[in-house]
Formats: sequence, C-alpha cells, structure tokens
Amino acid sequence: MLNHFMPGILLACLCLAGCQSLSLPGQRAEVEAAIRGLLSEQVADWNRGDIEGFMKGYVPTEELRFAGASGVNRGYAATLARYRKAYPGKAGMGQLRFSDLEIVPLSGVYAEVFGRYHLKRGGAYEDATGLFTLLMERRLEGWRILHDHSSALSHP
Amino acid sequence: MLNHFMPGILLACLCLAGCQSLSLPGQRAEVEAAIRGLLSEQVADWNRGDIEGFMKGYVPTEELRFAGASGVNRGYAATLARYRKAYPGKAGMGQLRFSDLEIVPLSGVYAEVFGRYHLKRGGAYEDATGLFTLLMERRLEGWRILHDHSSALSHP
Repeated sequence: MLNHFMPGILLACLCLAGCQSLSLPGQRAEVEAAIRGLLSEQVADWNRGDIEGFMKGYVPTEELRFAGASGVNRGYAATLARYRKAYPGKAGMGQLRFSDLEIVPLSGVYAEVFGRYHLKRGGAYEDATGLFTLLMERRLEGWRILHDHSSALSHP
Repeated sequence: MLNHFMPGILLACLCLAGCQSLSLPGQRAEVEAAIRGLLSEQVADWNRGDIEGFMKGYVPTEELRFAGASGVNRGYAATLARYRKAYPGKAGMGQLRFSDLEIVPLSGVYAEVFGRYHLKRGGAYEDATGLFTLLMERRLEGWRILHDHSSALSHP
C-alpha cells in the first residue's frame, strides 16, 4: 500500500514546497505585511537622506531593472547612480511618502505592488507625484524589488 | 487502499493544475510565444484603426488597471474610453510598434512583460515613444493584460 500511497504524497509535497499558491488568507496577509514593512523601511531611510539604506529594498544584483522617464537602468550600481544623480543630497531627496498601495501575491516567490509616491521638497527642488509598479521577488533575505517602473503624473 | 491513495494524487493534481512553476524551457518558450502572438495581434488591430480589436488583449473585467501619465483607469470600459479619447480616429492612432520585449513567466497563470512602444503619427499629432510594464494573466481564452503601466520617455 505504501508503494501506491507515497508517490502521490511526495508529488504533493514537492509541489506545495516549490510553488505555493498563496490562496490562504493568512499567507496573503503575511506577504502583504512583509512587503509593507520593507517599503516603510525604504521611506524611513529616504527621509533620513540615506540612499544606500533606501536601496536595500532592491535586489543587489544585475537583474535589477529601473524604468523611469529618462529610460531604463539595469543592475544595482546603475540604479543607485541614477538615484544619486536625480536626488542630490538630503534637500534634493526631500520627504517621501507612498500611498494607495495595492499588493498582489502572484506565487510563492513573486508579488506585484502598485502605488503612488509623493515627494515634498523645499528650495529650488520641485515636488513630485507619480505612480509605480514593482515586481517583488522573495529571496533568502526577504522580499526585494526586482523590477521598478515609476512615472510622474502630469496632473497630480 | 484507494482511500489512502487518492488524497495524495488528488492533492498533487490540484497543485499541478493550480501552480505550474514553468521551469522547463519548453513551457517558458510556449508562454513567450503565446504572449508575443497576442501583442502582435494588438499591434495589427491598432494599425488598422481598430481600437476594440486592440482592446481584446486586455481582460474584459473590472480588474483591469491602466496606469498612465494622466492617472489610473480601472475596468475595461474606462480603459477603452481613455484610449478613444487619447487617440481619436485612425490618424490619431497612427502606426504602433513594440520593441525590446522582455517576457518573464512568473507562475502558471501570471507573466510580466516589459517593453517599448513607438507611435508614428502624421499631421497635428505628435510621435510618441515610451515604456510599458504589463502583468499578464492566463485565462480560459488565453493570456490577457490585467495591469498596464505605460509612460512616455522624456528623451526617446
């Protein structure tokens, strides 16, 4: 009997381990909480003027892709350089806030985040509001942003 | 014996149906080909001036979300209305082309597409180039766009 019983159970276990469908409300809530936590840390780091801290929300690899109005940056180093250039110093970075977050778990290792960013800056720097779509990847160290598509709103 | 045998097999079948991990190159190639086919049909419909045909690439439901420079449209009807307003008539629609497509299968039912759109228009209408990130959903009728984030490039 075990000969027949085991393959089915094994298959089921392998499949459940490899591709969690996240259909249980508890699992979805856990993913949402982890991702919200990561984004909150990013905002706190940004608002302290700590771009390297903010960048910890992204995968630290060449697979990272950041798409914005000026084009596509590939890899962690290019994305960090773009942020440094676009937001020089603490005054240039201003105060960041995210709103209207929509988090969609897609599998055990991927999730989509859609939301709005609001940047308040003083002096010569303009305020900015826009939309972002993130593809999040679950890694050993936690959820990280793999792909980021951010765009300004013409009439925020 | 069947009492013990069946639950394992059932679990395995349910899981395999619900969360294919698409790790086999053949599966990934199949998903890519299907999505490229859908986007090619969209382009052909657009270039015939057929917005309704083009819209068949999107899920026909309230879950559809289109994010652009003017904000967020939710649902099929609002997205169709936005396209009709932004691209009036065949001259306003011009000739569309996609390039640099990157298709990432995320699970058995989701895939991400990133790419570039190029719109050539005559007369009073400006040309346009930009980037798009799509979340694709596999439905009974085939792959369809669930979420679309499109943005213009400031220096194409």
